[in-house]
Amino acid sequence: MKVEALRLIIKSAQKFINIGSLTRLWNLIKNLHPSEISSLMGHLIINKKITLFNTLYDEDIEKAAEVLAELKPEDSVAILEKLQIEKISGLLQITPPDDVAPILELLPENIKEAVLVSMEEKPTEDVMGLLDHEEETAGRIMSPDFYALNENTNVSDAITAMQLEGDVESAFYVYVVDDQLHLKGVVSLRQFLFSPPNTPLKNIMTKEVISVHTNTDQEDVARHVADYNLVAIPVVDSENILVGVVTVDDIIDIIDKEATEDMYKMVSLDTTDSIQDSPFKSIKKRLPFLLLSLLTASLAPFVVSHFTGTLQQAITLVVFMPLVAALGGIAGNQTIAIIVREIAIGQTEWISARKALGKELLVGIGNGLAIGLITGGISFLLSGNPYLGLVLGLAVIINLFTAALFGTLIPLFLKMIKLDPALGSVNLLTMCTDSIGLLTFLGLGTIFLNHLT
Amino acid sequence: MKVEALRLIIKSAQKFINIGSLTRLWNLIKNLHPSEISSLMGHLIINKKITLFNTLYDEDIEKAAEVLAELKPEDSVAILEKLQIEKISGLLQITPPDDVAPILELLPENIKEAVLVSMEEKPTEDVMGLLDHEEETAGRIMSPDFYALNENTNVSDAITAMQLEGDVESAFYVYVVDDQLHLKGVVSLRQFLFSPPNTPLKNIMTKEVISVHTNTDQEDVARHVADYNLVAIPVVDSENILVGVVTVDDIIDIIDKEATEDMYKMVSLDTTDSIQDSPFKSIKKRLPFLLLSLLTASLAPFVVSHFTGTLQQAITLVVFMPLVAALGGIAGNQTIAIIVREIAIGQTEWISARKALGKELLVGIGNGLAIGLITGGISFLLSGNPYLGLVLGLAVIINLFTAALFGTLIPLFLKMIKLDPALGSVNLLTMCTDSIGLLTFLGLGTIFLNHLT
Repeated sequence: MKVEALRLIIKSAQKFINIGSLTRLWNLIKNLHPSEISSLMGHLIINKKITLFNTLYDEDIEKAAEVLAELKPEDSVAILEKLQIEKISGLLQITPPDDVAPILELLPENIKEAVLVSMEEKPTEDVMGLLDHEEETAGRIMSPDFYALNENTNVSDAITAMQLEGDVESAFYVYVVDDQLHLKGVVSLRQFLFSPPNTPLKNIMTKEVISVHTNTDQEDVARHVADYNLVAIPVVDSENILVGVVTVDDIIDIIDKEATEDMYKMVSLDTTDSIQDSPFKSIKKRLPFLLLSLLTASLAPFVVSHFTGTLQQAITLVVFMPLVAALGGIAGNQTIAIIVREIAIGQTEWISARKALGKELLVGIGNGLAIGLITGGISFLLSGNPYLGLVLGLAVIINLFTAALFGTLIPLFLKMIKLDPALGSVNLLTMCTDSIGLLTFLGLGTIFLNHLT
Repeated sequence: MKVEALRLIIKSAQKFINIGSLTRLWNLIKNLHPSEISSLMGHLIINKKITLFNTLYDEDIEKAAEVLAELKPEDSVAILEKLQIEKISGLLQITPPDDVAPILELLPENIKEAVLVSMEEKPTEDVMGLLDHEEETAGRIMSPDFYALNENTNVSDAITAMQLEGDVESAFYVYVVDDQLHLKGVVSLRQFLFSPPNTPLKNIMTKEVISVHTNTDQEDVARHVADYNLVAIPVVDSENILVGVVTVDDIIDIIDKEATEDMYKMVSLDTTDSIQDSPFKSIKKRLPFLLLSLLTASLAPFVVSHFTGTLQQAITLVVFMPLVAALGGIAGNQTIAIIVREIAIGQTEWISARKALGKELLVGIGNGLAIGLITGGISFLLSGNPYLGLVLGLAVIINLFTAALFGTLIPLFLKMIKLDPALGSVNLLTMCTDSIGLLTFLGLGTIFLNHLT
C-alpha cells in the first residue's frame, strides 16, 4: 500500500473511532488485507487499537484472527488481554497454531490458563505440542497442519482425502508417509494434475525429500529453504516421523528478523528494541548495554592517562588523537560487517576462517599503507614537521592493521565460544582500535618526543 | 549440508582434480544438489572451478545449467568466459531467463554478441525482454515462464493446456487473463483439484490479485510478497497485461541481499565486497570510502586544534576525550541501526518520522542523564575535582542527545534526498558525535578552566 493511502486510512480510522462511528470504521477496513489492517493498527494508540479490533471481531471473526496472526505477538497480547476469555479462546481456535503458540507464551499466566480451559481439545493439543519445543527451533515454528498421505494411496483417493481435509495453510506439496508415518517422499500438487488417477503416490513421489529435525535452529531451517529454493520444508522427529511443515512465509519473517538481529547485536542493541516501543521501554533496553560500553570505552582513557607527560610537551599530538581513533574504528567496522554477514548467510563457516583472516589482514596492510601515507603526508605538509608525519602515518598504518585483525577475530571468536558472532562486536572493536591506536600513536610520540617539541 | 561434510567434499574434489580423475570427481558430485555444488565451487580456485564445471557439463548439461543459476552472476561469467561459444549458448538456452539476464550483462561484449547470435530465437527474446527493464526492478528479475490461461477456459481444458506447456519454474498458481491478456484473476493449483472439470476459470478464480508493475523496485516487490504471504507475484505492464512472475526463491535472495546491503552501506562498504574477493580487489573497493572517511574524520581534529591552549593547562581533559567520543558513537550507532532497519522493513516511512525523532530524542536524554551522571560521578571520585565531573558529565549528556538527534536525522535526511538511508551513515554520525562531543567537552573545559588546573 502506498504511504499516502495508508496515511489517509490512519487519519480516517482515528476520526471514525473518535466520533464512535463504528459502521464507517468497518466500511473503511473491510476490504483491506489483514497485513494492511495490522500496519494500520501499528499507528494507533492502544485504546483505539482495541476499539478497532473489537469492531473487526464483531463483524468478521475470521478476519480478526488473520489480523492477529499478522501482528507481532506482543501487540496481539496487548489487545487480547483486554478481551473476555471466551472471545480470546474463540479467536485463538481459528488462528493457525504456529501463530498462537508465541501469543499464549506471552499471555499472563491466569489468562493463559483460563483460555486453555475454555478452548476445545484439538487446537490446544496442536499449540501445546509446539510449545514443547525450544524457542527458535523448527519444532516451535512449524505448522502442524499439512497434507500427509500413505504411500499406497492412489492419486484419485488422495484428491478426495484432501478435499475432505479441507483447506490447509498454504499447502503446495503433499507429503507421503509409510504405515508408521515415516516421511518417505513428496508430491507437488502439479504432479497430481498430470498423473493418471490410479497411480499410487509412491510411484510419482520424489524420494529425496529435504527435511529438518524438530530441534533444528530456525535460522538453519531458513538457510535450507533459501538454498534449495523450497516453498515449504517438512519437519521430522528423531524417528523420521513427519510432525509439521515450515512454510516460506515464516521463513521470510525469520530471514528479516535474523538480518535485523545481526545489525542490532553488532551495535549492542536489544533485538526486541523497536521504534514502536515507548521511550521509557527503550531506555530500559539500551541502558544496560551502554553501561557495558562505558566499561569497554574506559580502556582508551586508561591508556592515554599514561601519556600525559608526553602530551603536555607535544600538545599537537592531542589534535590528531581523534583521527587515529576514528580511522581505526571505520576500517574495523568494514571488516566486522563483512565477517558477520558472511557467517550469517553461511558463506564462511570455520571452513575458511583462516583464509578470511589472511585476506582481511592483507587488506588492512594495503589500506593502512595508503591511508597512513596520505595522513602522514598531509600532517607533515601542514605542520612542517616530518616526525609528526612519521608518527601519525605509522600509527594509522598499525591501527588499520589492528582493525583488520580484531575485526576478523572478534566475530570468529564470539562464534567459537558459541555466542552470536555479531554480539557487541562493534563496541569490542572500538575498544581495541581506540586503545591500541592511541597506545601506538602516543608511544611513537614519546619515542620521537624531542623531535616533536 | 553440514560443515564437516562440505569440508570432506572440498578436499576430495581438490584431490580428484589434481590427479585428473574426473570419473571419481563426477561420482562425488553427481548426487549433490545444485546449490551444494555451487558452494563447493566457492571454495575452489578458478582453474579447478573450470575443470569441475566442464566435467559437470560433459556428464549432465541440465545440472550444469542449474548450478549456473545458483552461482553469483560474476562467478558464472568467470567460468563461461573460458568455454566455447557453442557451449555457452547451449547452457544459457536451458537456464531460466531471469538467471541468464544478469550473466549476459556481465559477459564481455564480443562474447555476448557471439552467444546471442548462436542462441535460438525464443530464449534470446525472453532474455532481451528482461534486459529492457531497469536493474533492480520487477521487470528485470521476473521469470517470463508462467501458466496464463483465458478466463473462459474450463478446468479440464486448463489441465490439458498445462500438461502441453510442460514444466514451468515453480508454478503454484495459474494466472487468468482476458482476450487482451489483461490480468483478471488467479487460481491456485489446489482449486483445480477441487473443482468440477467443466467449471470456467473465471468462476473459481480469486479476483483481487496482488500484482506489481514492471518498474516496481525489487525491494518493494519483496515487501509485497512478504507482507501478503505469497509464493509468487505476477508482474504487469502499464496496460495491466501480464508479462511475468517473480517467485519467492528470488524474493529470499533479494531480502538477504537487501539486509547485507543495509549493513554494508552503514559502515561505508561497497555492496559487492565479499570475503571471496582477492585482497587487491577489496582494497580497491574500500579505499575510496576510507578516503572519504578521512575527510569526515578530520572535522574532530580541526575542533580540537582550537583548544590546545585549554588542554595545555588542563591535561587531564585529554584523558577523557576518547571516552566522550566513544560514548557518543556507541549511542548514535544504536539509533542509526534502529532507524535504518525500520525504514528497510517498511515500518517507519515518513509517516512517523516525527514520532521516531521525538522518541529517540527522549531516549537520548534519558540515557544521556544516566550515563552522564555515572561518568561524571566516577571521574569526580577518581580525581577529587567536582568541576571535572561536571564538565565530563554535561559533555556526555549533550553528546548522547547529539547522537540521538543525528542518529535519527542522518538516515531520514539521506532518504529525503533520495539516497539510501544507510549510506555512510555511521561515518557521518561519528563525524557529528566526535566533533560536537569534543566541542562541548573542551568548550565546557575552557569555561571552567580555572577550576580544573
